Amino acid sequence: MSQESQELTVQPDELRAFSETLYRKVGVSRDHAETMANFQVETDLRGVYSHGTRAQPRYIQGILDGNINPTPRIEVVQEGPCIAVIEGDSALGHLPSSMAMDMAVEKAKSMGIAAVGVRNAGHFGAAACYGMMAVREKLIGFAATSTSMRSVGAPGGATPVVGNVAFCYALPAGKERPIVLDMACGISAWERIKTMSMYGIPIPMDWMLTEDGEPTNDFDLGEVLKPAAGPKGYGIAMALTTMAGPLIGGLMGCHKDGGASEHFFMALNVSSFTDYEEYTEEVDRGIRTVKASKTVEGVDEVYLPGEIEWRNYESSIENGIPLHRDHLSVLAEAAEELGVEIFWDPREFDK
Amino acid sequence: MSQESQELTVQPDELRAFSETLYRKVGVSRDHAETMANFQVETDLRGVYSHGTRAQPRYIQGILDGNINPTPRIEVVQEGPCIAVIEGDSALGHLPSSMAMDMAVEKAKSMGIAAVGVRNAGHFGAAACYGMMAVREKLIGFAATSTSMRSVGAPGGATPVVGNVAFCYALPAGKERPIVLDMACGISAWERIKTMSMYGIPIPMDWMLTEDGEPTNDFDLGEVLKPAAGPKGYGIAMALTTMAGPLIGGLMGCHKDGGASEHFFMALNVSSFTDYEEYTEEVDRGIRTVKASKTVEGVDEVYLPGEIEWRNYESSIENGIPLHRDHLSVLAEAAEELGVEIFWDPREFDK
Repeated sequence: MSQESQELTVQPDELRAFSETLYRKVGVSRDHAETMANFQVETDLRGVYSHGTRAQPRYIQGILDGNINPTPRIEVVQEGPCIAVIEGDSALGHLPSSMAMDMAVEKAKSMGIAAVGVRNAGHFGAAACYGMMAVREKLIGFAATSTSMRSVGAPGGATPVVGNVAFCYALPAGKERPIVLDMACGISAWERIKTMSMYGIPIPMDWMLTEDGEPTNDFDLGEVLKPAAGPKGYGIAMALTTMAGPLIGGLMGCHKDGGASEHFFMALNVSSFTDYEEYTEEVDRGIRTVKASKTVEGVDEVYLPGEIEWRNYESSIENGIPLHRDHLSVLAEAAEELGVEIFWDPREFDK
Repeated sequence: MSQESQELTVQPDELRAFSETLYRKVGVSRDHAETMANFQVETDLRGVYSHGTRAQPRYIQGILDGNINPTPRIEVVQEGPCIAVIEGDSALGHLPSSMAMDMAVEKAKSMGIAAVGVRNAGHFGAAACYGMMAVREKLIGFAATSTSMRSVGAPGGATPVVGNVAFCYALPAGKERPIVLDMACGISAWERIKTMSMYGIPIPMDWMLTEDGEPTNDFDLGEVLKPAAGPKGYGIAMALTTMAGPLIGGLMGCHKDGGASEHFFMALNVSSFTDYEEYTEEVDRGIRTVKASKTVEGVDEVYLPGEIEWRNYESSIENGIPLHRDHLSVLAEAAEELGVEIFWDPREFDK
C-alpha cells in the first residue's frame, strides 16, 4: 500500500472545530478548548503530527483518568519585572505555557530579556509553538520541557535518569523564514519512534535499551532511550531539566514518573540589544549563504532549522493537512467514546 | 612509549606566573595578564588542556600578528537593567567575557535574569569558566561563543556554514559538585581532534570532510566538521550563532572567516524563582539518583555533566597538573621567542 493511500487530507478549520468539540465534551471551557485546538492544528500544519491532534486522545484520557484538571486554577506564584513562575494546577500543558510565553514576551519587550517557568502541568505539545509566539513579536523565543517521565539514560547507563527533554530556539528573520529549531535531547522523540513503528520504518538497534539494558529495536520493549550524541544530548537534558524543574519548584527529571511536567520559557527582545533592521538583514543574508552550500554526493540541498516544517505549513495551508489513517482512527475512537461525529469518511481508505 | 612518560607534572602557581610573564612580554597589562593566566590555568586544572595554556601561544601570535589588541578599550555600548552589549575592541576574548559575566551576575542578582553579549573579541577559552563564575554566586550560568571561523557544515552540506559553536550550562548544587556542561555543537572540538592527532588516537572517518566534500580522518585535510547528531548540533549552532552574532551587532557564523568572535552570556538567579535550599536539596538528590544508575555491560559508572573535569580539578589541585610533552614544547617555543625562561626541565622526558 502506498504511503499516499494511507493518508486523507483534512481542512484545518474542520480539524480545529472537531478538536474543540472533543475538549468541550470532557468539561474544558470554550476558551481553553479553543487554545488547545489552535496549538494542535498549528502543529499538524507544520507536519509534527505526533505533537498535534494525534496527542489529543491521550490528553483526553488524562482528563478522564483524573490526571489532568479540565478546569484548572492557573496562578502566577512568583513574579518580578523579568521573571515569573506559574502554578499549572495540573492543567493541559498548553494553557499555562501559552500564558507563560505571553508574559515572557511582554516583560522582555520592556526589559530586554525575561524568563517564565510553569510547574505542575501536562504535556505542552510542540516547543516550537511557544518559540514562534515570540518570533511573531520580533523577539527571540526559547521553550523547554522536562517532560513528565524519565526515559533517557546517561551514556553507558541502563536506568532512565532524565526525560526526553525537548526545547526550541526560534529566531526572527526579515524576508526569509524564521529559524526554528525544535528538538529532543534523546536520539529521537519517543513519538517519532512510534510514528516509525506505525509506518513500518525500521528503528535502528542503537536507539533503545530494554529494561535489562539490552539493545532493542522493538518500540514495545524499549524502556531506556539513548541520548543524542551521547554526553551532549544527555548534558543538555540534565541542564534544562534542572531549569524546568528544581529552579521553579519541580523535581529533577530522574524523579519524574509520569506525573506533572515543568516547562521553561525565555524571550529576548532583539531591539533592546541592537538595531532590528540590521539584525534581520544579517540573518537573511546568513540564511541565503547557508542555502547556497555545496552538498555531499546524493544530497540535493541543505535545510535551515525548521525549514521543512515551514514548507509543510505552507503546503498544508494551501492544500489541507494530510493525516495518516492510524492518526484518524485514534481520533475516531476518541470521538466515538465521547459521542462526537467525525467529519471525514473513513471509507475513503477502502477505495 | 607509555602515556605517562609523555607527561610532566607542573604546579598551578608556577604555570600561572609563567603564563602571566609571557603576556607581559607582548604588552598586555598586569591586570589583564593575570586574568588570562587565571582562566587558562583553571582550564588546565580541569583537564581541558586544548582550551587552557596550550592555546596561549596562539593568542600571543595573534597579538604579534596584529589581530589581537594587547591594550584594548573595552566598552559597554548598550545597557539596560538586565541586558548589555560590550565592544571588545579585538581584545583577548577572556577579558571582555569575564567582564560580561560579572555584569550578568550582578544584574541577575537583582533582576532574576540577565544577558550580556560581547562583540568583536578573540577566543574566550573554555565556556565552563564563565558558567562557573555564576555558580560561585549561587546563580545558573550560560555562556556561548560563535567562534571566529565557519567550520561546521549543515547536514548533507560540504561547505562550512557555522562555527563549531561551544556553550556551557553551569548549575549550582548543594553538597554535590555543580552540574557543568561544556560542549561544542560539532561532532568534536577541533582542538580535541588535534589532541587525538597528537596522542596518535585514531580519528573516525565520519567526523570531517575535505574541501571537496570527501570523508577524511586526516586532521590536516579536514576542512568541514560534521555537526553532532546531525540536525541537532547544527540547529543549536545556528541558533546560538545568531545570538552570539547579529543579536549583538556581529555576523552570522557563515560569514565569519577568522576575524572577531562574538560571545553571549546569561545568568539566572535561583533565589528569584524559588527557595535556594529547596533547589539545592532536589539537585543533590537528583545527582545521587543519577550516580546510582545501572550500567550497560562493560561500563563501570555513569557521570554527571562536568564530573570528569571536577575530578581532574581535584586531582590536579592535590598533585599538580599533568601536561603533555607536546603541550610543553609549544609553550617552550613561545617562551624562547620572547626570551622567557621555562620553569620545567625538558630533559625529564629523556630519562
